[in-house]
Amino acid sequence: MTEPKRRVSIAIDAMGGDYAPQEIVSGAVDAARRGKVEPVLVGPQSILDEELAKYDISGLPIRCINADGFIKEEENPALAVRRKPNSSVAIATKSVKSGEATAMVGATATGSLVTSALQYLGMIEGIDRPVIGGVLSTLAPKTAIFDLGVNMDCKPRHLLTFAIIGTIYARVFLGIPNPTVALLNVGIEEGKGNRLAREAFPLLKESGLNFIGNVEGHAILTGDANVIVCDAFVGNCLFKLSESGGSLVAGYFMDKLKKYPIIGQLLRRKSKSAVASLVSANSVSGGLIWGIDGVVVKMHGHSKAAQVATALEHARMAVEGDVVNCLKTELAKIQEHINL
Amino acid sequence: MTEPKRRVSIAIDAMGGDYAPQEIVSGAVDAARRGKVEPVLVGPQSILDEELAKYDISGLPIRCINADGFIKEEENPALAVRRKPNSSVAIATKSVKSGEATAMVGATATGSLVTSALQYLGMIEGIDRPVIGGVLSTLAPKTAIFDLGVNMDCKPRHLLTFAIIGTIYARVFLGIPNPTVALLNVGIEEGKGNRLAREAFPLLKESGLNFIGNVEGHAILTGDANVIVCDAFVGNCLFKLSESGGSLVAGYFMDKLKKYPIIGQLLRRKSKSAVASLVSANSVSGGLIWGIDGVVVKMHGHSKAAQVATALEHARMAVEGDVVNCLKTELAKIQEHINL
Repeated sequence: MTEPKRRVSIAIDAMGGDYAPQEIVSGAVDAARRGKVEPVLVGPQSILDEELAKYDISGLPIRCINADGFIKEEENPALAVRRKPNSSVAIATKSVKSGEATAMVGATATGSLVTSALQYLGMIEGIDRPVIGGVLSTLAPKTAIFDLGVNMDCKPRHLLTFAIIGTIYARVFLGIPNPTVALLNVGIEEGKGNRLAREAFPLLKESGLNFIGNVEGHAILTGDANVIVCDAFVGNCLFKLSESGGSLVAGYFMDKLKKYPIIGQLLRRKSKSAVASLVSANSVSGGLIWGIDGVVVKMHGHSKAAQVATALEHARMAVEGDVVNCLKTELAKIQEHINL
Repeated sequence: MTEPKRRVSIAIDAMGGDYAPQEIVSGAVDAARRGKVEPVLVGPQSILDEELAKYDISGLPIRCINADGFIKEEENPALAVRRKPNSSVAIATKSVKSGEATAMVGATATGSLVTSALQYLGMIEGIDRPVIGGVLSTLAPKTAIFDLGVNMDCKPRHLLTFAIIGTIYARVFLGIPNPTVALLNVGIEEGKGNRLAREAFPLLKESGLNFIGNVEGHAILTGDANVIVCDAFVGNCLFKLSESGGSLVAGYFMDKLKKYPIIGQLLRRKSKSAVASLVSANSVSGGLIWGIDGVVVKMHGHSKAAQVATALEHARMAVEGDVVNCLKTELAKIQEHINL
């Protein structure tokens, strides 16, 4: 007799995101049906009941936790999280702290989600501020970029922590045992770049990570390394360019083929799916907030049911990959010879 | 009787670039045939004679200036320019200073070209270091990015000078009388971004330029402003991503259509030209080095004849657009209320 597999319970801010609560609840129900996670919906019970009434959830692993209200997109995150300790995002985060859930996900506004995570779960020692990242394009499905988050003005040691985080990401989410790490730069030679890149290079070289040197901007599409590190200002700019680039170039391309209406029509369907797979590559939308002492996954504000299910899956992998403890262990190892 | 049009004489380092002197001379001959410029080839006379002997240049507006040698790619630019005052790049630059030519172009290594320009022509007052930029993609043919050059660690006032330079670029090369200027950032709201962006915003707002606020990474393809300013580290990363992105995405796309061999074959020819036009958009390869007190155009190291002809045309437009004096005038205007 096999023991029933323990499902990973994941709290969801049912009230966060452009399509909350409808699409959030819908995605949670889908995920529950797949059977690998136990979604824990957090929001005002009456709203949750109303949404759940739309589905047949008998026997499904899905729970609810009541919250008194929620934080609106336009509210000041720091103030709102403090003033509304019973808001859906706060309750969801606290459920991770208390152990009621093992992780949380939310399409909540970044500010509120991060503030709540900082307040109720705190940072891992050795990391100053939250870090996000991931694979940007199907063209380079084994290449992740860190940081795409809040670390705009970085010190060299920050890039080192991004490299550690990226290494764990690549191991757990991409299945690469010894991921290569590279520094984003304007040329491949050591000594190139701005002050940050020049100073981070030797630190990465001595880190004990699988550092292969500098890569240039195109590497996020050509996949020259499994992990590419940069500050979040550069990362964000590249991310947004790459995000729109796929569909723009494909659109341009299709436009050029418009002169051949019959062929064009035949192709349009096929090409649409090609473009879609290219654009949807952006796994950042289901992105773990690294550095928080707990598994917290931020979804894009405009996430729909499919993205919710993906984010729940992402959180499950993070829990099962034990990313928080892996990160603590790696940080401790590095700190034996480099002071973070 | 109409007066014969005065041709713009442009010195060329005939020894600079991966395909020098063959492709450089070939491009110069092409440009001379078009009749709008008078190329002035600079290099060892014997080499120039040998190359020119391959063409019928009788009656063509083309001249030579002898140089004793040239600077090799691997030499230290600062030392080489000092030690070789009679190298082709140095002689070409000096010909602009002396008035023998009105501008110069070179596929010379960037370091040597810039060092030579700095030494023999100097910087315009109010600009610290050379600036380069231009249109990155045919998807946004009316959008130029500055800086893509050497200004890796910028102060806010540097971004202001990029905005002035970009404005002149857009007027002269894109024919836009009152170009819109935007700051590259991670969000559109004022106050977003790294320290540089946050501090540059108010400066741009008060500049008297046609500043429209922040734009995000995708704007270099969607063309939300005529001029987008950023430091050269970010600019270079975006440039290299965009440069490779077009062909990579198109390649991916074509690959997806491979399943339809007959249609694919039919399309391949058409699509190749579409991709080519997308990729060749990179006008940076014919890029003026802004801030130098004279018109100096840097070509890509792997430029061939066609790129040489384009660079000569680019230099001619810069001379006829009087960009150096325009820049001095605009700088003076801004300095009345902002200290650069």
